[in-house]
Amino acid sequence: MPRFALHIEYHGAPFVGWQRQTDQPSVQGAIEAALARLEPGPHNIAAAGRTDAGVHAIAQVAHCDLEKDWDPFRLSQALNYHLKPQPVAIRAAARVGDDWHARFSARERRYVFRLLMRRAPATHDAGLVWQVPQQLDPEPMRQAAQYLIGKHDFTTFRSTICQAASPVKTLDELSITEVEGWSGPELRFFLRARSFLHNQVRSFVGTLERVGTGSWTPEDVRDALAARTRAACGPVCPPQGLYLAGVGYPDDPFADQPANRPGS
Amino acid sequence: MPRFALHIEYHGAPFVGWQRQTDQPSVQGAIEAALARLEPGPHNIAAAGRTDAGVHAIAQVAHCDLEKDWDPFRLSQALNYHLKPQPVAIRAAARVGDDWHARFSARERRYVFRLLMRRAPATHDAGLVWQVPQQLDPEPMRQAAQYLIGKHDFTTFRSTICQAASPVKTLDELSITEVEGWSGPELRFFLRARSFLHNQVRSFVGTLERVGTGSWTPEDVRDALAARTRAACGPVCPPQGLYLAGVGYPDDPFADQPANRPGS
Repeated sequence: MPRFALHIEYHGAPFVGWQRQTDQPSVQGAIEAALARLEPGPHNIAAAGRTDAGVHAIAQVAHCDLEKDWDPFRLSQALNYHLKPQPVAIRAAARVGDDWHARFSARERRYVFRLLMRRAPATHDAGLVWQVPQQLDPEPMRQAAQYLIGKHDFTTFRSTICQAASPVKTLDELSITEVEGWSGPELRFFLRARSFLHNQVRSFVGTLERVGTGSWTPEDVRDALAARTRAACGPVCPPQGLYLAGVGYPDDPFADQPANRPGS
Repeated sequence: MPRFALHIEYHGAPFVGWQRQTDQPSVQGAIEAALARLEPGPHNIAAAGRTDAGVHAIAQVAHCDLEKDWDPFRLSQALNYHLKPQPVAIRAAARVGDDWHARFSARERRYVFRLLMRRAPATHDAGLVWQVPQQLDPEPMRQAAQYLIGKHDFTTFRSTICQAASPVKTLDELSITEVEGWSGPELRFFLRARSFLHNQVRSFVGTLERVGTGSWTPEDVRDALAARTRAACGPVCPPQGLYLAGVGYPDDPFADQPANRPGS
């Protein structure tokens, strides 16, 4: 059976998350239902990142096995037709080898987090950003982020229900950019790692927000990391500012696609 | 009664437009209902631009008369509290003179139009852009726009139900910028005039899109303008890419607010 990689974008709000659930709408379930309109199922697709409820994707990657050797462009068009009106779009499809795996072949995950700093409730960007009422100072947040970059035991920044075998991960990037966004001043967080723990990005951003208000110092973040206990974490921020923004593979199956790093 | 100017942002989708209607949700109606929670009505507010159904605003301006001499910041906060969860936000309020009028004191209206060029359906920006499947060539569109700038009889680009006394208006700006937006490549149209005719911006953008695909030449737009008949207009584009983006007054009542020209 020919195998296809799918570059997927979605709005997380109407879904309980990526992963299929029996009675509730999931992104995986929506795409598998669209696949079943093309070829009888059951389909069981695998994704690079299992995003939580309310988390968005700019560039999730999954793979599926089909009977027919579809033209990749026609496959993406057909899936988009059947996905409507759900806010899930196939940005690209590509033929990959039988041993290529969206999750296990991935070498890097990239996330973007949008934090909007303004008092009046967002209207156009409602559900697409985490909004805080005051200006944050990004400079101490960047200092704190330096303590998190590298190889660490991230027990402090890991959900208690995280199923990863080890809390030790290597964070390759945590940069913070000031952007004049559509609805006002934003901080955009860019994170890169081979893989992330459950709730790791939202634990980082919620804790760094405390630094941006002055409630925490950068050194408080260093000490929280060193404590290696979930109790030392700051508040976990809400999901609606978080985007799975890219997945890296040794050979990019979508090499002819533009880079997936919006707003940088 | 003290008079207040309100800087208003809204998402146009749930509304039949700015103007109050008996049985259907309008932006004016939503704000007047919020005002009635602060002081018994009836309230009758006037706005600089009466936007159509589905059209958004970044910076609509209206004024209201109240009994109490509210602190402007507290007024905006109280209105936002009562406007929730509707996608309408008071960005700022300001005390103005009794003869100041949101509509009649205005010297300039500014609009932005967002046109997203990509094939896969937009998810995060659904309802916030006009989406076309192909790349457009902005250069001939800019040439065509040059014919529209200045003082002209705009009968061609005016809805047949337009109630303005004269079709002669002066268009001060129609510029087109290429932007790498959140969801992909966009053309952003910036328009400035003392006032606009009904459907004028959407008639311009729909016609210029024809030039961007190569169906029309820039000179076809020149000839359509000269024809001074509605039949010569290109297709009127949909409302969801259009934003009332600013209103100019001889003395800006929100002088301490940041400039309202996002994405430029």
